Amino acid sequence: MNQKAIGVFDSGIGGLTVYQALKDKMPDEKVVYLGDTARLPYGTKSAETIIRYSEENAAFLMGKKVKIIVIACNSSSSYALPHLQNKLDIPVIGVINPGAEAAVRGGAQKIGIIGTTATINSRAYEKTITRLKPGLKIVSRDCPLFVPLVEEGWLDHPVTRLVIGEYLLPLKNQGIEKLVLGCTHYPVLKKVISEVIGAGIELIDSAQTTTENVFSILTELDWLRNSGKRSADEFYATDFPERFQKIGEIFLKRKIVKVQAISF
Amino acid sequence: MNQKAIGVFDSGIGGLTVYQALKDKMPDEKVVYLGDTARLPYGTKSAETIIRYSEENAAFLMGKKVKIIVIACNSSSSYALPHLQNKLDIPVIGVINPGAEAAVRGGAQKIGIIGTTATINSRAYEKTITRLKPGLKIVSRDCPLFVPLVEEGWLDHPVTRLVIGEYLLPLKNQGIEKLVLGCTHYPVLKKVISEVIGAGIELIDSAQTTTENVFSILTELDWLRNSGKRSADEFYATDFPERFQKIGEIFLKRKIVKVQAISF
Repeated sequence: MNQKAIGVFDSGIGGLTVYQALKDKMPDEKVVYLGDTARLPYGTKSAETIIRYSEENAAFLMGKKVKIIVIACNSSSSYALPHLQNKLDIPVIGVINPGAEAAVRGGAQKIGIIGTTATINSRAYEKTITRLKPGLKIVSRDCPLFVPLVEEGWLDHPVTRLVIGEYLLPLKNQGIEKLVLGCTHYPVLKKVISEVIGAGIELIDSAQTTTENVFSILTELDWLRNSGKRSADEFYATDFPERFQKIGEIFLKRKIVKVQAISF
Repeated sequence: MNQKAIGVFDSGIGGLTVYQALKDKMPDEKVVYLGDTARLPYGTKSAETIIRYSEENAAFLMGKKVKIIVIACNSSSSYALPHLQNKLDIPVIGVINPGAEAAVRGGAQKIGIIGTTATINSRAYEKTITRLKPGLKIVSRDCPLFVPLVEEGWLDHPVTRLVIGEYLLPLKNQGIEKLVLGCTHYPVLKKVISEVIGAGIELIDSAQTTTENVFSILTELDWLRNSGKRSADEFYATDFPERFQKIGEIFLKRKIVKVQAISF
């Protein structure tokens, strides 16, 4: 198992924050990334459809002989995780549980959650946090402009600062102690969010918390890659690989050599 | 035919600007509106898929016995218009031709075109304008933040003004005389766009140009509604009718009484 790759899928490009966190933590691991860009967004689709798409994505990664699958998509993590865990004989982890676990750790009483409209309306983080630690105060807010701002590459732009203030200062004023970045695009804005709302609020970056989770599982199973020889990562997209490549470079702050188009 | 409704379909909510323009011009007409919100966006899908979805939308409207179909969606107008015109025995019109015709009218030499990334990449307006009047100078630019800004309801917000300046002042500096608002969401921002770039640039609102087109066709065929008795318009959405209702009210500046969910 050790030499096999880590498989990551997302409805699009956002999961590259998870990819980057995995590589920062485990630079020797090979990652195979699939962005289902042809069928995004998942958030507005029915549970059945999200499960079907997630199955197809997972089957593609299984074909690449991965040793673990990371669902770097909030909607798919909400709806398809238990299903894929039952179906596959390798570990499958999503982004919601690790984020929720980090939120309840320590003594914070008031947690903020931000995400896309679909994620916030699904109340996925809220439910998971409440299950882990009932009674916490939770304040949620959707931030629909963050994804297009990231995809524009306006990471440190006056517009982005204004929008962050508009969305997040009301949460700050309500006294949140932690803020869950409940969308895989948002870690790209972490620095500027911290600057606008102040360092007093702990930002929970689900890309990082998910990576910690992957690392513990691979360590426990003794499946970490143990050869010094690195293999190139692979990127696949179901539509517009050029767009994936262009926006992907905003996420990774480096060139992506090759994105391969696939279709289901 | 006179008493029958005008059918409008769009991939989502943006076509409500066309709906509103139709009602402003022909308040006695009944309109049946279908937003295919479950399957949006169309712009990132293949031509075959867009044609198939457009056929299903048109078939739904035909079932409502409409007398004319307006495709209030740029991607569907680009790819499915000739197909639906051949297939159906009632007039079908799209949003691109009327906008392009308005752009070439008069003596302007330099035309700006804005739209979503998918519309700009498709070069649909550019090709149509060049076919109508070869040799015009055309400057295009995608404005991916406009749709989420409209859907946030930030119609006269400092963020919106900043974004408009960032996107459109370079076009102004290149000396455009007209600007085609090549996305059905954009007419909602017409006033603030004009304030930011100045009244010297004529804005071409494809909702209005399309409405003029519908009006001429119905007048020529003598199909305009001739009874004073108005019937209530009908709104259908393929997913999340609540969201359609909420955002629709930003477009129409009034309550939408009822949005009915349908599925294909």
